[in-house]
Amino acid sequence: MKRRDFIKGSSAAVAGVASAAIAAPAISENRKQWRLITTWPKNLPGLGTTAQFFADQVTACSNGKLEVKLYASGEVVPAFESIDAVSAGTVEMGHGAPYYWKGKAIASQLVSNFPFGLTAQEYNAWYMFGGGAELCDEFYQDALGCRFLACGNTGVQHPGYSRKELNTIEDFNGLKMRMPGLGGAAMSAIGAVVINLPGSEVAQAFASGTVDWVEWNSPYGEATMGFWRYGKYYYTPGFHEAGTSLDLFINPAAWDTLDSQEKAIVTNCANSANIYALSEPVAYSGAILQKLVAEEGVIVKKIPDDALTAIATAVGELIADQVANDPWSAKLFASLSKFRSEQIDYTNTTEGAFIQARNLPYKFPS
Amino acid sequence: MKRRDFIKGSSAAVAGVASAAIAAPAISENRKQWRLITTWPKNLPGLGTTAQFFADQVTACSNGKLEVKLYASGEVVPAFESIDAVSAGTVEMGHGAPYYWKGKAIASQLVSNFPFGLTAQEYNAWYMFGGGAELCDEFYQDALGCRFLACGNTGVQHPGYSRKELNTIEDFNGLKMRMPGLGGAAMSAIGAVVINLPGSEVAQAFASGTVDWVEWNSPYGEATMGFWRYGKYYYTPGFHEAGTSLDLFINPAAWDTLDSQEKAIVTNCANSANIYALSEPVAYSGAILQKLVAEEGVIVKKIPDDALTAIATAVGELIADQVANDPWSAKLFASLSKFRSEQIDYTNTTEGAFIQARNLPYKFPS
Repeated sequence: MKRRDFIKGSSAAVAGVASAAIAAPAISENRKQWRLITTWPKNLPGLGTTAQFFADQVTACSNGKLEVKLYASGEVVPAFESIDAVSAGTVEMGHGAPYYWKGKAIASQLVSNFPFGLTAQEYNAWYMFGGGAELCDEFYQDALGCRFLACGNTGVQHPGYSRKELNTIEDFNGLKMRMPGLGGAAMSAIGAVVINLPGSEVAQAFASGTVDWVEWNSPYGEATMGFWRYGKYYYTPGFHEAGTSLDLFINPAAWDTLDSQEKAIVTNCANSANIYALSEPVAYSGAILQKLVAEEGVIVKKIPDDALTAIATAVGELIADQVANDPWSAKLFASLSKFRSEQIDYTNTTEGAFIQARNLPYKFPS
Repeated sequence: MKRRDFIKGSSAAVAGVASAAIAAPAISENRKQWRLITTWPKNLPGLGTTAQFFADQVTACSNGKLEVKLYASGEVVPAFESIDAVSAGTVEMGHGAPYYWKGKAIASQLVSNFPFGLTAQEYNAWYMFGGGAELCDEFYQDALGCRFLACGNTGVQHPGYSRKELNTIEDFNGLKMRMPGLGGAAMSAIGAVVINLPGSEVAQAFASGTVDWVEWNSPYGEATMGFWRYGKYYYTPGFHEAGTSLDLFINPAAWDTLDSQEKAIVTNCANSANIYALSEPVAYSGAILQKLVAEEGVIVKKIPDDALTAIATAVGELIADQVANDPWSAKLFASLSKFRSEQIDYTNTTEGAFIQARNLPYKFPS
C-alpha cells in the first residue's frame, strides 16, 4: 500500500494552513470541537473516506456535542508527524496506519499486522477477543504517547502488477520492484532489487521500465493509476498485507476529558468505521478486476509457490530479528503469533474450504 | 445452525413473564425505554451475547436517554412470534436471523444469505455498498412490517459431525442427517434422509444413532454439546451457511419517534455489534478445534467434491424455484447474485489465495 507517498506529496502545503487549523479549540456550552488529523488526502477511496465516515458518525451520535472536524494529510502537520501532534496535544486525534510510526517505535509495524500474518477477520477477532485491544493501547501509550483504537482494515491487498511473467523463484532475480515494508525486504532476500519511489512517480517509473513491478493496494484503490497499460500481469496473493489494520490515535489527556457516553460513542463509531473500511474496497474491486480482465487484457497470475515459500521464510527471519531486539515487538508478536497459530487450521476449514468449494463446476441460477 | 431449537425450548416459559415484561413503556424527562426481544437464550455464545452488546452500547452511547432492555427468547413472546410483536408495536425491536421469518415471507431466507452464497465479508460489503441495506429495509417494511438493520454475522458455520466416514456421493444415500433449511433440502436431493429434531434431542439422537450426522454452528457454539463423543468426523466446508446475517428489526412508528442522534446511535451500534458477532466465534473456535483434534480424536474431513457439486446444483434448483414463484425473492436474489458473481473471482485472488499461501512449508517464528 502506498499511503506514505500520498502523504509526502501533500505535506508541502503544510506551512500556510497549520496555524489557522490549530487555532481556537472551541469549547462552549459543554460542546467540544475535536480535530481529527489524517494521513490521507481528503476522501481517498477506502482510507480518507473511512476517516470522514468516523468523524461524521461521532458528530451525529453526539448530536454535535462532540463535533469531530477532519483535516486531510498536511493541512495541520505533515502526515508522518501526526502521531507527535496528537501525543503533544496540538490536536486531539488522528487516523492512519500503525506502520507509519515504525521510525518511532518499530513494534508499530506489528500492530498493523505482518506478511503471512492474519486475515482481516482474524485480526478483528484478535483485537476484540484475543487481548489485542488492551495490548495495542498499552503499547501506544507507552511508546507513542497516545491511546489506540482499531479503526479500519484494508483486507487482503494486491501485491502488484508486473511487466514480466514470473514462473519460478529464479525469475525474481534482479527484478526491479517497488514494494515497501517487510514484504519488500523479503523480496530483496530472494534476489529482487527493491527501489523506493514516491507515489507521484510510480506510474511513470512503471511505464518507462525503471521498475518491472509496482505494488499499490486494490483494484478499487488503483482504479485511477492505469498500471495495466504498462504491465498486464496482475499477481496474487497479497502475502505482504493480508489485513492491514488502520489506527485511531488519541491524546490521552483529551481522552480523559470525555465522559463515559462520549467514550462509548468514539469506541462504537471506530468499530463501525472498521467494517465500513473493509467493505468499501471489497464491494467495488471485484467488478473492476472483472472489467480489467475482460476489456484490458489483464492476466491474473499466482506468484510461484517456490518463491512464496522463500519469501515467507525471509519474512520469518526478519520478524525473528526484530523480536530479538525490541521488547515491545516481542510482546506483540507473542500474542499475535499465538492467535495466528490457533487460527490457521480453523480458517482453512472455514473461509478457505468454502471459497474453494464455491469454485466447483455446478450449475447455479444468476 | 440450530437457533430455532433453543427458541422452542425456551418459549415454554412465556406465559408467566410476558405480562410483566411488556407493562409500562416508561417515557419520562425525554428518556425512552425500549424493549429488545431476542430469539436467543440470554447470552447464548455469539448470538445472545451480540444482542446484549448492542443493547448495552445503545444505552451507553445515549447516556441512558434511549435505554435498551433485553429480553431473552420467550420472555415476552415465543421467539418465532418476535417479528409480529415488533410489527404490531408490542415492543420496539427484536434481534434474530432473517430466515426465521420464512414462514411469513419466503424471501427472508435470502436476506440471511444462501448456501454457496456470500462470505461474511462479501455480505457486509453488499449490505453497506451494494444496495443491500436499502433493499432489505424495503423488503422488511413491505413484507414484515418492520425496519431492518444488519446486526451480526455468524461467519462460515460448521456443516456437521458424522458418525460415518463419507468418501463419495453414494455414501450420502440413506444417511440420516439433521440439517435445516436449504442446505438440508439439498442434502435430501442427493439421497440423504433429513430428520427434523428439536435442539434438546439432538445430542441424544446422535448418541443413539437415530441420526448419523448433526449440524450445529461452530466449535465455539458447539462446545457444550459433546457431539465428538459419538461421531469423530468433523466435516467441512460450511457450504450451507457461509456467512449468515443476523437482523435487528424495528417497529416503524417507534423508529420514527427517534431523533437523528438516536437513529445514528442505533445504526452505528448495529455495525459495531456486527463486527462483534463475527469476531467472537472466530476468536475462540480455532483453539477449541485444535484441542478436539489433539485430545479427543476428532478427524477433520472434507465433503467429497462430487457430493458438493451435486449439493450445489440442487441448491441452485431450489433457489430458481423460489425466485420463479416469489417477486421479493426474485428482487433480492438478483441483487445478491450479481454481487456474488462479481466477488467470486476476486475473493479467490484475495482471501482464497492468501489462505492457501499461508499453508506453504516455510519456517516461521512462533
